[in-house]
Amino acid sequence: MKTLVIGANGQIGRQFCELAHRAGEPIRAMIRDPGQQAWFGERGIETVVADLEGDFQHAFDGCDQVVFTAGSGPHTGPDKTLLIDLYGAIRTIDLASERGVSRLLMVSAMRAENPQAAPEKLRPYMAAKFAADAYLRSSQVPHVILKPGRLTDETASERLATSLEESGGENRISRGNVAHALLHLLKARALVDREFVLLDGTRPIDAALGG
Amino acid sequence: MKTLVIGANGQIGRQFCELAHRAGEPIRAMIRDPGQQAWFGERGIETVVADLEGDFQHAFDGCDQVVFTAGSGPHTGPDKTLLIDLYGAIRTIDLASERGVSRLLMVSAMRAENPQAAPEKLRPYMAAKFAADAYLRSSQVPHVILKPGRLTDETASERLATSLEESGGENRISRGNVAHALLHLLKARALVDREFVLLDGTRPIDAALGG
Repeated sequence: MKTLVIGANGQIGRQFCELAHRAGEPIRAMIRDPGQQAWFGERGIETVVADLEGDFQHAFDGCDQVVFTAGSGPHTGPDKTLLIDLYGAIRTIDLASERGVSRLLMVSAMRAENPQAAPEKLRPYMAAKFAADAYLRSSQVPHVILKPGRLTDETASERLATSLEESGGENRISRGNVAHALLHLLKARALVDREFVLLDGTRPIDAALGG
Repeated sequence: MKTLVIGANGQIGRQFCELAHRAGEPIRAMIRDPGQQAWFGERGIETVVADLEGDFQHAFDGCDQVVFTAGSGPHTGPDKTLLIDLYGAIRTIDLASERGVSRLLMVSAMRAENPQAAPEKLRPYMAAKFAADAYLRSSQVPHVILKPGRLTDETASERLATSLEESGGENRISRGNVAHALLHLLKARALVDREFVLLDGTRPIDAALGG
């Protein structure tokens, strides 16, 4: 059985797909545009063309886990935050429920549980993440919610902290570390209905996340 | 015990406050700006100044029902849709739950249950309403969700339809009719955890909504 990766062409998505494929985990990268296929094809990674804003239920065929790391990104407006980060996540949760997917790994954000504590510019995004996470929690879908801090392009240290206390107040994490955390969680199937803040830290990933 | 009206200064909100006050229902109109107070003061309607994007829990003191008819409106962007229509509703639901409010009457929208069926321009708004409604349904707060069609400024006919079949496919409703429906529901306390599509129609309000 495969893992469907939604948001595969994003910055975390590509790193995760590459790691998972090298680790021998069967994955299917969901891409919107056939032009995005070459990058995955060169690496031998299976793709499926599907639109998170349209019909994408065929992408679930033969998949028993789902990674959701889609994000509308900083260059689109809050209308896309509503359609991708909020409603794309909701439809993914609904489809995961209908298909009886064994687990959904959701990339959310630190502070999503308290949008008012976020800087004003980030609040609309955090509100979308709050609502998507709440929808997932109240669904019947077994899940893990990942809450990375501010994303950086540093090289993955493969060392994590899971709270601001532990990280000494540093609120950053490399996208590579998020990808490594996703790979660990993909394999740690006993971790169900759990939530983790993710920050760069000092603990090996398996020690930080367990499983 | 009073009914807190969130979104009181909106187009539906003002009509509802006026109707409810004339009917002798104790209400408290929540307004953002003290400058909005005059309109309510002239009519003898109690107000409380509170910010739906900030702190508004004091507005709930002494209230056992809540009407949520706030909307960011057509002149603001989807960032406000996220902060008002989605997250303002979520925080209202959370406060209603904490305070043990007996009922929350939520003004949502027809088609909120299927944003993809809405015209493209309306989809982000419908996604916000979908998520707010889902949050309310999965909460412990007794509620009624109202789903009006396209709002007009026609004079209230005080006659409703509750489906497109019944309205002959006409998808409109006057804001005045929504206000009258809210007033009926405010008094019809036996109606709990119900949802109604609201359209202009031919049935008297009590026949259309029951209670």
